[in-house]
Amino acid sequence: MTSESLKKVVESSSFEPAARLVASDLNPHALNAKYAVRGRIPTKAEELRTRLANESHSLPFNKIISANIGNPQQLDQKPLTFYRQVLAMLQYPELMENPRLKDSIPSDLLARSKELLDNIGSVGAYSHSQGVEYVRNSVAKFISKRDGYEASPDDIFLTAGASTAVSYLLGLMSLGPKTGFLIPIPQYPLYTASLALNNATALPYYLNETDDWSIDAKELVKIIEDSKAKGVEPRCLVVINPGNPTGAILKPEAIAELLAVAAKYGLVVIADEVYQENIFRGEFVSVRKVLCQLQENDTQGKYSNVQLASLHSTSKGISGECGQRGGYMELIGFEDSVRAQLMKLASISLCPPVTGQALVELMINPPKKGDASYELYEKESSSIHKALAERSKALFEAFSEMEGVSCQQPEGAMYLFPNISLSEKVYAKAEEQGMEPDEFYCSELLDNTGICSVPGSGFGQVEGSWHVRTTFLAPGTEWIESWKQFHAKFMDTYR
Amino acid sequence: MTSESLKKVVESSSFEPAARLVASDLNPHALNAKYAVRGRIPTKAEELRTRLANESHSLPFNKIISANIGNPQQLDQKPLTFYRQVLAMLQYPELMENPRLKDSIPSDLLARSKELLDNIGSVGAYSHSQGVEYVRNSVAKFISKRDGYEASPDDIFLTAGASTAVSYLLGLMSLGPKTGFLIPIPQYPLYTASLALNNATALPYYLNETDDWSIDAKELVKIIEDSKAKGVEPRCLVVINPGNPTGAILKPEAIAELLAVAAKYGLVVIADEVYQENIFRGEFVSVRKVLCQLQENDTQGKYSNVQLASLHSTSKGISGECGQRGGYMELIGFEDSVRAQLMKLASISLCPPVTGQALVELMINPPKKGDASYELYEKESSSIHKALAERSKALFEAFSEMEGVSCQQPEGAMYLFPNISLSEKVYAKAEEQGMEPDEFYCSELLDNTGICSVPGSGFGQVEGSWHVRTTFLAPGTEWIESWKQFHAKFMDTYR
Repeated sequence: MTSESLKKVVESSSFEPAARLVASDLNPHALNAKYAVRGRIPTKAEELRTRLANESHSLPFNKIISANIGNPQQLDQKPLTFYRQVLAMLQYPELMENPRLKDSIPSDLLARSKELLDNIGSVGAYSHSQGVEYVRNSVAKFISKRDGYEASPDDIFLTAGASTAVSYLLGLMSLGPKTGFLIPIPQYPLYTASLALNNATALPYYLNETDDWSIDAKELVKIIEDSKAKGVEPRCLVVINPGNPTGAILKPEAIAELLAVAAKYGLVVIADEVYQENIFRGEFVSVRKVLCQLQENDTQGKYSNVQLASLHSTSKGISGECGQRGGYMELIGFEDSVRAQLMKLASISLCPPVTGQALVELMINPPKKGDASYELYEKESSSIHKALAERSKALFEAFSEMEGVSCQQPEGAMYLFPNISLSEKVYAKAEEQGMEPDEFYCSELLDNTGICSVPGSGFGQVEGSWHVRTTFLAPGTEWIESWKQFHAKFMDTYR
Repeated sequence: MTSESLKKVVESSSFEPAARLVASDLNPHALNAKYAVRGRIPTKAEELRTRLANESHSLPFNKIISANIGNPQQLDQKPLTFYRQVLAMLQYPELMENPRLKDSIPSDLLARSKELLDNIGSVGAYSHSQGVEYVRNSVAKFISKRDGYEASPDDIFLTAGASTAVSYLLGLMSLGPKTGFLIPIPQYPLYTASLALNNATALPYYLNETDDWSIDAKELVKIIEDSKAKGVEPRCLVVINPGNPTGAILKPEAIAELLAVAAKYGLVVIADEVYQENIFRGEFVSVRKVLCQLQENDTQGKYSNVQLASLHSTSKGISGECGQRGGYMELIGFEDSVRAQLMKLASISLCPPVTGQALVELMINPPKKGDASYELYEKESSSIHKALAERSKALFEAFSEMEGVSCQQPEGAMYLFPNISLSEKVYAKAEEQGMEPDEFYCSELLDNTGICSVPGSGFGQVEGSWHVRTTFLAPGTEWIESWKQFHAKFMDTYR
């Protein structure tokens, strides 16, 4: 555009310019959504990280310990070699033909990469919106073997991590404030955030902290009946197993009780099972397996209408490949018309990242005994598992020794969620600073040690009780030691 | 769970099972959303593809030509070697140290991979929700150079393709049916689908087909005033440039007129500029550049409140890396409080795929003259560009020769959108089959030739006019020939 014509346009702009949008002009449901995992404390941690980069900082620590988010590879966890070797070949298939590498690529790795490439095609092409059929077949086989009940590839939707699945499911089932979603408290705040975005009603059910964070089916029924009486129709029951932030594992008997409630009230069960590989104590049994068992014993069709969406992800487990955005959901018992709507939502987003889809295949179908890559895979994966188990134990023991702290023994997932008794003095000080008491604790912990955790209030907790969620992913034990020292001093200060 | 306890649970299930959800129980806004690019015709094409796999099929063609979607690598487009080499090293950094490869890796490739790895870290870790800072810096430099006006990395949000950006922006600005969004007709149906999901009102403005699909600013003003009179507040003006499905490029003067309207009415401009590299005729000038030029000449602050979100993607251009889900949006002129809300939405999705972020960096910062990888990169990218230009021309010429077909000369993007005169007989036949006339044309085209296109009704068109959108990505000219033959026969049949 010539400068002359530009000037002409500007000069002839005889209007008064309108104001910009401000937050209060925006979608109030979006404004209402909160997401503590990346909230105030982590934001402050980022600021401190920038200050640390300046050598003349006056902070009492030299690094930030990111214990706020289950992000293993941000800390010291190395990716599994086999996964990354295959993904490298999918990105650049010429590696498979490279004469320099020829004799050095393990035979199973080469065969696997070729098979994936043949069946996926270029990872740069959009796939089917439901995900690559080959990968869905593989997922179905994995589930069949895990549960002992046949799964179908038609029921599998590959997703960009489990978050996308939650967004589709909640978006589709929300019809405003008259639709209710039973969510555990404490919960992973993705659920409350997504419900806020959809203007649906959260129906919190409290996990029983003194009984290993168990679920009371009778309480569920009470909440459902109360909700119905108030005109809010319960639609969906969210179960997180192993629990986030609690780290607890549900027993099959407890799952059966939940399923009875779902069957009676027609609730869609969302089983968030992304931590199914992170098991330190006890056993993981999928909601699907219990449902299949019930259906097998059920001659009267009591359980045949149960609708279950179960979610898995490449971000957790021993893969820890958060940044690659892989995952799947399995839909069981849904009407075709409902499934078609989920398919449409998926198609509006085109497709999940194709390398993430390949990673799902690798996660659920790792090298087998006898394969050339097996030994290394086995060594790496068991060492990751062992390290997590050890760190969870060390952290748990540290909490057990701290004054006023009680904590469930770690069973699964990547988190501990200790209960911390806070004094009236802490309450007063926190109020002065415009914070919740547990937020104040986390803020002081960060300022004094560089440890970034998330206050229990971000996940929900019984009123008057205070918690902190921390991962046990950070390497070393120094940070655990510094937490202990901080805690002792904090308790003294506010005694 | 023991079979005994299972039986006990089932036997004590004294409730009557509730019914399953059906589609009418779902969010009506989700039900209303339509997405033709993966709609009825492409779904039918998938069925035909399955039939083709059976050797004894009786179809009059041997393959499906996927001309319905801009998915270059699904067809014959090879990915750019440099991009994929770097991504392979980011997936498996040990390749950089592999002694067998040592002297064979071009020096710039090695240096670049190392720099990206150092600055991104593992691609398996969640990044900052706004995207990796290093990549955002690089994007800001690219934009500064492209437009001649300084851009800031703080304004850049990396996204999973442009679709995610659209979803955040529309979700945040929609406050139900009282909020209006000006969208071009014809349009890429992501916009109408997203508005339906958000229950906001689409305010269609028609592109002038006989004037190279131009925009009439006076018509925009009329639509805005009419809409305000009806109580629907216009919030946002969507511009797709180069156009999808039209393939037309906007002139800077036309952009200046749009910006005057946006400035006067306080509309947020969404500039969907994902085809900015696909230019065959004329020149691409970004909305941002014109805005900066206006602001530079504007002493009275008429243009200082304009809010612009401009979108780019790794899926199109010469990269064509659709499946990798990379992209960015730049936010200009937004209040901090609004930007913070976008940041929150991004954080609920955790982060865009990290390999997709790396790919953005590669796309906007390719090898430079003198770099060891430059020659191959230049050869590959210019051959892709040339092939697209040639195919667009061949297809355009074919349409020019067809009876009752008129088509704009290709300027940009990946599509042609020919106008097809259809007879009363076609109308009758289509109605009989429960289709729009152009849908019937596309359906017949598919059944007879295997060519999968999208009817104009999926994008919107002036009432009584009929179009077909087709990509020109499919290799070879046989399919163009078979389209010509089909068309002649179709016109004869329904004369």
